[in-house]
Amino acid sequence: MADIGIGIIGGGYMGKAHSVAMAAVATVFDTPLRPRLEMIAATSAQSAERYRQAYGFKRGTADWRELVADPAVEAVVIASPQATHREIALAAIENGKHVLCEKPLGESLDDSAAMVAAAEKAGVANMVGFNYIRTPASQYARKLIADGVIGDVTWFRGEHSEDFLADPAAPANWRTETEAAGCLGDLAPHMVNGARALLGPIAEVMADRKTVHAQRGGVAVKNDDQAQMLVNFESGVQGHLYFSRTHHGRKMGYIYEVVGTKGALRFNQEDQNALELYLADGPEAERGYRKILTGPAHPDYAPFCQGPGHGTGYNDTIIIEAKDFLTAIHTGEPVWPTFREGHEVNRILAAARASESGRRWVNVSEI
Amino acid sequence: MADIGIGIIGGGYMGKAHSVAMAAVATVFDTPLRPRLEMIAATSAQSAERYRQAYGFKRGTADWRELVADPAVEAVVIASPQATHREIALAAIENGKHVLCEKPLGESLDDSAAMVAAAEKAGVANMVGFNYIRTPASQYARKLIADGVIGDVTWFRGEHSEDFLADPAAPANWRTETEAAGCLGDLAPHMVNGARALLGPIAEVMADRKTVHAQRGGVAVKNDDQAQMLVNFESGVQGHLYFSRTHHGRKMGYIYEVVGTKGALRFNQEDQNALELYLADGPEAERGYRKILTGPAHPDYAPFCQGPGHGTGYNDTIIIEAKDFLTAIHTGEPVWPTFREGHEVNRILAAARASESGRRWVNVSEI
Amino acid sequence: MADIGIGIIGGGYMGKAHSVAMAAVATVFDTPLRPRLEMIAATSAQSAERYRQAYGFKRGTADWRELVADPAVEAVVIASPQATHREIALAAIENGKHVLCEKPLGESLDDSAAMVAAAEKAGVANMVGFNYIRTPASQYARKLIADGVIGDVTWFRGEHSEDFLADPAAPANWRTETEAAGCLGDLAPHMVNGARALLGPIAEVMADRKTVHAQRGGVAVKNDDQAQMLVNFESGVQGHLYFSRTHHGRKMGYIYEVVGTKGALRFNQEDQNALELYLADGPEAERGYRKILTGPAHPDYAPFCQGPGHGTGYNDTIIIEAKDFLTAIHTGEPVWPTFREGHEVNRILAAARASESGRRWVNVSEI
Amino acid sequence: MADIGIGIIGGGYMGKAHSVAMAAVATVFDTPLRPRLEMIAATSAQSAERYRQAYGFKRGTADWRELVADPAVEAVVIASPQATHREIALAAIENGKHVLCEKPLGESLDDSAAMVAAAEKAGVANMVGFNYIRTPASQYARKLIADGVIGDVTWFRGEHSEDFLADPAAPANWRTETEAAGCLGDLAPHMVNGARALLGPIAEVMADRKTVHAQRGGVAVKNDDQAQMLVNFESGVQGHLYFSRTHHGRKMGYIYEVVGTKGALRFNQEDQNALELYLADGPEAERGYRKILTGPAHPDYAPFCQGPGHGTGYNDTIIIEAKDFLTAIHTGEPVWPTFREGHEVNRILAAARASESGRRWVNVSEI
Repeated sequence: MADIGIGIIGGGYMGKAHSVAMAAVATVFDTPLRPRLEMIAATSAQSAERYRQAYGFKRGTADWRELVADPAVEAVVIASPQATHREIALAAIENGKHVLCEKPLGESLDDSAAMVAAAEKAGVANMVGFNYIRTPASQYARKLIADGVIGDVTWFRGEHSEDFLADPAAPANWRTETEAAGCLGDLAPHMVNGARALLGPIAEVMADRKTVHAQRGGVAVKNDDQAQMLVNFESGVQGHLYFSRTHHGRKMGYIYEVVGTKGALRFNQEDQNALELYLADGPEAERGYRKILTGPAHPDYAPFCQGPGHGTGYNDTIIIEAKDFLTAIHTGEPVWPTFREGHEVNRILAAARASESGRRWVNVSEI
Repeated sequence: MADIGIGIIGGGYMGKAHSVAMAAVATVFDTPLRPRLEMIAATSAQSAERYRQAYGFKRGTADWRELVADPAVEAVVIASPQATHREIALAAIENGKHVLCEKPLGESLDDSAAMVAAAEKAGVANMVGFNYIRTPASQYARKLIADGVIGDVTWFRGEHSEDFLADPAAPANWRTETEAAGCLGDLAPHMVNGARALLGPIAEVMADRKTVHAQRGGVAVKNDDQAQMLVNFESGVQGHLYFSRTHHGRKMGYIYEVVGTKGALRFNQEDQNALELYLADGPEAERGYRKILTGPAHPDYAPFCQGPGHGTGYNDTIIIEAKDFLTAIHTGEPVWPTFREGHEVNRILAAARASESGRRWVNVSEI
Repeated sequence: MADIGIGIIGGGYMGKAHSVAMAAVATVFDTPLRPRLEMIAATSAQSAERYRQAYGFKRGTADWRELVADPAVEAVVIASPQATHREIALAAIENGKHVLCEKPLGESLDDSAAMVAAAEKAGVANMVGFNYIRTPASQYARKLIADGVIGDVTWFRGEHSEDFLADPAAPANWRTETEAAGCLGDLAPHMVNGARALLGPIAEVMADRKTVHAQRGGVAVKNDDQAQMLVNFESGVQGHLYFSRTHHGRKMGYIYEVVGTKGALRFNQEDQNALELYLADGPEAERGYRKILTGPAHPDYAPFCQGPGHGTGYNDTIIIEAKDFLTAIHTGEPVWPTFREGHEVNRILAAARASESGRRWVNVSEI
Repeated sequence: MADIGIGIIGGGYMGKAHSVAMAAVATVFDTPLRPRLEMIAATSAQSAERYRQAYGFKRGTADWRELVADPAVEAVVIASPQATHREIALAAIENGKHVLCEKPLGESLDDSAAMVAAAEKAGVANMVGFNYIRTPASQYARKLIADGVIGDVTWFRGEHSEDFLADPAAPANWRTETEAAGCLGDLAPHMVNGARALLGPIAEVMADRKTVHAQRGGVAVKNDDQAQMLVNFESGVQGHLYFSRTHHGRKMGYIYEVVGTKGALRFNQEDQNALELYLADGPEAERGYRKILTGPAHPDYAPFCQGPGHGTGYNDTIIIEAKDFLTAIHTGEPVWPTFREGHEVNRILAAARASESGRRWVNVSEI
């Protein structure tokens, strides 16, 4: 097994998660490449050194440019703020590095378009960190739908709600400042990606948003706390998407329901090791939603544990992502979701913003 | 305790439910009036006689006009098709009868407006059969919201979905013929009433509908299988309503979630004896949705059973409704929901239809 | 449809429940007999009159002897304390009345043996009020087991726990006085009956009990708060039974799990309209406990409501019981559970007591 | 941060889990020592080489004696069959290595006693792999009980059931051969440890076992499929333990319920990120089991992820265990559960065997 030098930019929440994943992935999976934690970049030399030690990297740097230019770094994980994605990604790609970028892909359509163009031109592996769709349960849900087990899909409901800003007394901070950090910008991408992964492209949207708490600690809130939209998929399926950061009681409410002509399924990330499936077959008196506990029979579970019901967790979704990224690098074949998917998600968000401001249905092809 | 003569029009699904309720209500509750099952009207003498015997009425008739004119009948329950509501109600009111009418109230805004006018002018007790909002759990949910236990409401999601037409092979029938029998006409009223009961008036709607199965057995389906709408309440709260008769796995999906600044609650009629409540107080580590099992501490439960968790069922909601109707008759005070509420619900449905056809937000005040 | 005169002894909790059931049963079901609420007996003339009015009986009496001797009373429901069961039942039977007696059947094995002998000799309809096993879900569970759907049974867990004496500050009362009113005497019978209904006779038991709170308000508690036993059924199946009146959070914890060679099922009375079923067939990846919502496809549900998932409640179980009792009277055929079943349940309780005091396994055949 | 050389014996299910944990632990936690995957031992050179490559060890060996004697190996993880535990552990300890041994600790009381004696005499860090009690939920459950949040405990129910041998057609194998590999020997230890961790020492047991399928594929099964026991804790609390490997539908049924005078809690490893808590305080009408989703407020969660509800998985429990083992090595302070706890668990199993064979209550002090 060959080594591959990994550089991670950002040592916070997601930077740590990617560090853990890179440390563990080759022991969990039979990957062709084994990550070597080469360098971590942070905003100061001090924090870079702290992360280096804590996460086990060889080197730390306060300058991401050094990282993306370093010959020992072969693949870059971008886990820094959205506003930095484009510049970093373009520089990394220019240096021929493979890039895994956190979601959302940049701050704007313009950003993501530029990133797609650069990555595709350079032919490097490129991927967006939509990790939630990678649980064994959600991977299996995709398969059930694709295999027609629930028939032709007739309804979709998707949600990503949390309660980190539900308390009206929570102070204003960077999360309440910019359009990109708002509920639509920050929380929607995972589930928009999920909706597309499960049902395919979205044709049109009719959106509405709300700033639930206009002021926090005397400071004006400049973006949305809640967003929702009616959607119609290209397949003709009707659906609804809802996002919130003020939904008390929801801790990780990445939730979806898919109804078809032969059955239905539903999932809640808060119980990520279960998938509920209803099949309209067999005796009427014995039908009901069954709660399937994931196990080795579900995609990507077995390498974690041979026992069903033993469960994977949050970091394991990042490990799965890392495995797929390494595979893309090794094979030279693109792995879903590439930057292009990140850009498509951004188009839906742009359509939603246009819909809300115009109080009208917006066809995504307009964007 | 005085007797009161009850006449019921219609012996089917709801006619039977009301018969059971009238037979039991005065034994369950300490009502001031005890119903006497005086007369039942059906569409033929034969079925009237069959219902009379089966349900224990004194007399049966094939002519509802006979029933509403009979001096021994003091209160009338209308459990016949929507298209008949207006004519029957007006005749009953003209004869000075108190009227409990099944939902929705008539087939059109025009119908319900006429019924409201007649009932209010005559001063008779008048009520609409929105029974689901009467479970002890939903009554308590209303109280929790009204008492501010979950703070100021910030989000509402309501749904009424079932699967009786989910099978694409289910044949076309009267349910697939008229606008009034469609999903919006037939399934939406209960939850529109519920939304209003829990949060107050709805200001504007943005609706979309779908005929999931355009043909059934070679016959064209003439109404909607699914409907959804973005809503904004007069209070400024944002919400979403969804209705479906093709939602596999949902048997009685009268479901709502209400989020507030201090907590949240949710309910599903399929587990009607439970109410889930989240309170954002106490130690963070001990917070979670609690599943409250209804019992004597919740409105209208105690007369059914002294033991908590023992549970009420579908017919018990009709018994509670009957109790309230008898109280209205006895006291002369209107009891919620009167015909006026039925009319307000119809206005929302009309607004939704206008919204869908215009593909635009419609303010309910336009209707 | 013929009338039948009903006399009920006791107007409290169960007396009221039976009154409601008798008022409603012939409207719900197509019973051959229609109950006429003829007479109610209480411990004083005043309360008898109160119950008479509240429940709608023709007459009240302070003397149950008058009731059991009255020619207009054809069937008697005994809803008075256990200590009175034997004397009342024997007198009623002597007068040729049919008898439905609340559980447990008398205070002792001696009581129940005498009641069985008298009822069988007289040939009157006789039945014990084990209502919980009559939910549509539990009736269907019995059928699934009997039909072999879950294969040969290999494990049983049964429980009846509540929390009405969980608070250590709850005062001593009649419930804390006698052996018969203790946890084993009062709470165990329903689930012992349930275990037998689902799996057949119990061969041997190994029991243990506990008085959790030895004193209440300075008064010594004279019976058990908790009881449990290892059991072996005659079929060879191993199992466990547990009873408690101090189990915080359990409101109506009549719970069972049955495991077989082809699947498993479980039930909790707190969600009485659901039955969970696991079938070890189909693809491994799609197996899981399914939550079946009861509906017209399950025994005795349809007459209550044509819609699945709409739900039955506590009183509906008593209505089903009343229907079966009326059927027994009408047909002259015994209906399960007769007094004999009540006596068999008492034998298990006696075996448990012997087991605990001897700290040894006791074969039920010893009793 | 200093390195520490880790040697793992066994590359199967648990050997891999420990390898993953050792690869990730120092990145997840701020451990004082960073594991260096020094050597892995397997039963052949070929498989040792395969594991070495797959898990990322420096060296592999077919001789565990080489591993325990190697100076670069400072700590040994024993993940080989029970029958080998004693010999390996004694040799490792003799070489001054710290030892983390999988459960159960050896095959017999004799084994575990010898291991305890050796480890305590040598003063090396010693620990047993009871990982399930280390989920954030179960750690918090321990804390809630210890802090008296649910009052004085009055009842305990524990279970460890799975269905890996539920299919009668599953063939006989090593699991059906020996007493140690039976249900009591193999499945009981985790929950016996759990019961002790939550409630303290067990005073006496009354056990029963069953071989559900006497033959598998024509081969006699030589050990138990199911086991259960009544228990009384030294504190006087009554309880029940149940174990099964033939419980259809249970995938990871490590389940417990604890009832106290002020509340109750319950947990199921199949939904390991939730803990259900009932508190008997506040208004009666608002009481119910709350489902707490674990998050940074619960022990050992925060280093995995800053977001509550995001969830930990099976391997994360081993990572927590590794962290504690490293801490014990670093500080020189024993960390629960030491070998002594493993031995105490073995005593309960021995008492259960004596109880079953004697069909009598056995006091653990007899063992």
